[in-house]
Amino acid sequence: MAKYAEPVERLMAQLGKLPGIGARTAERLVFHILKSDEVEALALADAIRDVKKLIRPCKICFNLTEKEICSICSDPRRDAGTICVVEQPKDLLALESTGAYQGVYHVLMGHVAPLEGTEAEDLTIEALGRRVKEGDVNEVILATNPNVAGDATALAVASVVAPLGAKVTRLARGLPTGGQIEYANTSILSDAINERREF
Amino acid sequence: MAKYAEPVERLMAQLGKLPGIGARTAERLVFHILKSDEVEALALADAIRDVKKLIRPCKICFNLTEKEICSICSDPRRDAGTICVVEQPKDLLALESTGAYQGVYHVLMGHVAPLEGTEAEDLTIEALGRRVKEGDVNEVILATNPNVAGDATALAVASVVAPLGAKVTRLARGLPTGGQIEYANTSILSDAINERREF
Repeated sequence: MAKYAEPVERLMAQLGKLPGIGARTAERLVFHILKSDEVEALALADAIRDVKKLIRPCKICFNLTEKEICSICSDPRRDAGTICVVEQPKDLLALESTGAYQGVYHVLMGHVAPLEGTEAEDLTIEALGRRVKEGDVNEVILATNPNVAGDATALAVASVVAPLGAKVTRLARGLPTGGQIEYANTSILSDAINERREF
Repeated sequence: MAKYAEPVERLMAQLGKLPGIGARTAERLVFHILKSDEVEALALADAIRDVKKLIRPCKICFNLTEKEICSICSDPRRDAGTICVVEQPKDLLALESTGAYQGVYHVLMGHVAPLEGTEAEDLTIEALGRRVKEGDVNEVILATNPNVAGDATALAVASVVAPLGAKVTRLARGLPTGGQIEYANTSILSDAINERREF
């Protein structure tokens, strides 16, 4: 099989290692990069380098940050006594977007998924335990995803945090606002009935 | 809307500019890069940089190369009197893989597609004309894709090359080897009938 010049083959191989990018897509991307403006392509290379060099987990909550301590943990207006536990930084971001939460976070960096090789020990649960033990923590809110892996993860977190005396809560389940009952599945409807509130 | 740290947002924006990569995929790729080994991520950044810095079009045929003149054009065993005209470097590669061709190439770097904003003047047809005028060229083989854009491109190339006295041929059309007649469409079958040969 004939080959492209070495740098072209190398970039194709590197891009092909990214998730969801096969050989054909990698080839298309390489030709896009070859055609594109040099400034643009080098900006992409620099952005990759900077993300690896500048971004690290916050020493307290494991959120992504450029500093030792992330902007939320170092904000004195946030309530450090309430910790919201999420699976991923993107969950934290989604919750922040609501503007409804004034506490701090703890990012687990994954969920319990034995089939994918992720056990509770691979998450940042131990560090959360230390935060609860050492700090003045009133409440730990479990905000893992409302699915099997998220529920298993919530259980693992609770089993560490509850014995330390912290109040453990989890996000409410029920009908998604904006949805329609006829399209809600049976798990959603059972949750909505079981967690019904006084009107 | 809450945001990630600046380097994360910047890489997401840069990846999102690539064709076929939307905001969600870009986010997934950034998290993959953040998780992956640093050596691996920097290898990707370097590969992008190298492709832009080291790869250029061959001065003669516009094939991708790291040198002034590509390895095919500079190979004395290749017949410089036969030029096979292709749309893209990947077409050249496909033809090279057959091992059936001993001549040289000319890469047009695209095809005539007025709706995409590519006219014949944007291709490397003028440079091909100079090659034919200045060199000892016996034959120009049109190897553009067997579709509307490819045929329009072949016409544009022929209109420049034929008046210069070169013999102009095009790749054969007919039944694809390995296929079945019942699955061939009418255009393929008409080509196969019109270009039938003595047995």
